[in-house]
Amino acid sequence: MPDPAGLVDAARAGDRAALARLLSLVERGGDEAHEIGRICHPLGGGAYTLGITGAPGSGKSTLTNALLGILRDADRAVAVLAVDPSSPFSGGAILGDRVRMGDHALDPGVFIRSMATRGHLGGLALATPQAVRVLDAVGMELVIVETVGVGQVEVEIVGAADTTVVVVNPGWGDAVQANKAGLMEIADLFVVNKADRPGAADTRRDLDAMLDLSEPGEWRPPIVTTVASTGEGVDEVQSAVESHRAFLAGGGRLEAKRAARLRDELRLVVAERLRLRAESLVGVDDRQQLEDAVVARQLDPWTAADRILTAVDA
Amino acid sequence: MPDPAGLVDAARAGDRAALARLLSLVERGGDEAHEIGRICHPLGGGAYTLGITGAPGSGKSTLTNALLGILRDADRAVAVLAVDPSSPFSGGAILGDRVRMGDHALDPGVFIRSMATRGHLGGLALATPQAVRVLDAVGMELVIVETVGVGQVEVEIVGAADTTVVVVNPGWGDAVQANKAGLMEIADLFVVNKADRPGAADTRRDLDAMLDLSEPGEWRPPIVTTVASTGEGVDEVQSAVESHRAFLAGGGRLEAKRAARLRDELRLVVAERLRLRAESLVGVDDRQQLEDAVVARQLDPWTAADRILTAVDA
Repeated sequence: MPDPAGLVDAARAGDRAALARLLSLVERGGDEAHEIGRICHPLGGGAYTLGITGAPGSGKSTLTNALLGILRDADRAVAVLAVDPSSPFSGGAILGDRVRMGDHALDPGVFIRSMATRGHLGGLALATPQAVRVLDAVGMELVIVETVGVGQVEVEIVGAADTTVVVVNPGWGDAVQANKAGLMEIADLFVVNKADRPGAADTRRDLDAMLDLSEPGEWRPPIVTTVASTGEGVDEVQSAVESHRAFLAGGGRLEAKRAARLRDELRLVVAERLRLRAESLVGVDDRQQLEDAVVARQLDPWTAADRILTAVDA
Repeated sequence: MPDPAGLVDAARAGDRAALARLLSLVERGGDEAHEIGRICHPLGGGAYTLGITGAPGSGKSTLTNALLGILRDADRAVAVLAVDPSSPFSGGAILGDRVRMGDHALDPGVFIRSMATRGHLGGLALATPQAVRVLDAVGMELVIVETVGVGQVEVEIVGAADTTVVVVNPGWGDAVQANKAGLMEIADLFVVNKADRPGAADTRRDLDAMLDLSEPGEWRPPIVTTVASTGEGVDEVQSAVESHRAFLAGGGRLEAKRAARLRDELRLVVAERLRLRAESLVGVDDRQQLEDAVVARQLDPWTAADRILTAVDA
């Protein structure tokens, strides 16, 4: 049986294996995960979180890799959390895809971790903030969360970062698709990557037009063009991230954003707790009967749910 | 105030506007959605559901469109539910993307509807089966559910269809990515689309190798190669879907699969009900205090959740 407090101490002292173990426990969920959260929560708050998202193939990982180069030159402790099946950073190294990993996979100053996208609904939504909490508590200065820019859970996860970067590619359809996927609402910064391809100016114009149509806020997301594979424009991305960070630092905006994020997480945790409680409280026989009635189309799921809840109350 | 029973009657008599209204109400959730589910659940069970998924750009919509051609020749009532921001079938017709819609957008025998990917976590997971329930109840013989093949919720939704088709493209990475996204587990049939491009045979071999490594089941997913844009191989896809359907018809497999799906839905509905109840039961002051403690890092979200639940019990 692992000792969460001991693992946290070891990870804070720089033990990478302990950190990896903590993240595995957190990903698995259950009592140990909650105990780790309890220990780590008061230790955190120092890490800045940067979300990077975009469609598969848009070059998120190449951009992340290029950003890591800049950040590592500045000698900052950085972690990458890949919640993206299309990411070369992500796990399940079948058919040797580890060879596609970034330049920084073996850099001791960079901790790279993939989150499994499997498991029950809400699993990723619960596990990702816990993983960020651990990385924060052990002293990472920056946590990059990479998610694929499609998928309800994935978009919500990346939108919860302090600064969220949305990567699109040249071409008419990409800006439209980003909008349909709900990425316009979460973007603090747009990157038009692969800008050496035709259509980069058009994409920038499309994004600008969509921003004009959006509710104007205090911050208008800048649009940066890059060729991440050559490093072109990546410095500018870094500067734009820093500008947004400086913006958030004013007027208590960062604190407000993080507080809202914690409230959302608390709601999700309450719902999960209740789900587990309902599973354990309702007698197997009762539940089985109600399930059978739903399957036999004698009862719809919402009415059956009401009866289960009445049983919980009794 | 809409009258759910009246709308269901009208939709069953062929009123498309009533059907569209029902689906809007279901998507919005709440009491009216539940009432619609109550009415529709006993009326259903006749529709077969076909899930089609794959990465953006893999040609899911082109394949769906080609399949619609075959199915409409057979004069079957078909509905398409697009849960996929990259689908040209999906809504939010910004910048005129309606022009990219399929040949069947105006066919009165085909009902096409997109589901918004926004809203609270679990929204799509709850709304999609309700939308299918409505389409089933009004007499659709086939409901095609198209989701993007990335995203936790989206993969689970499409995996719940009677038959699930996973579309990949030629090239080494696609099969690997499908595996990482959890698509191997849900596929009843693989389509290697755009098979006129180099690498189709390699992709087929990769898929075969992965299937060899998987837990062998009673059904081994066949692999069909297509060029959906020209219609090549689409007949074969249709035949393979029918083969899987015939397989499910044996030994009560279809009933078992649908029963499991309804049980999963019931669990989700119970969790949602509990979430709503917890929001309403806990006094605003108490919750605010607990939230503030979490934000101040005096309390972690799991401990705060325990206290909220204790308040619910009191």
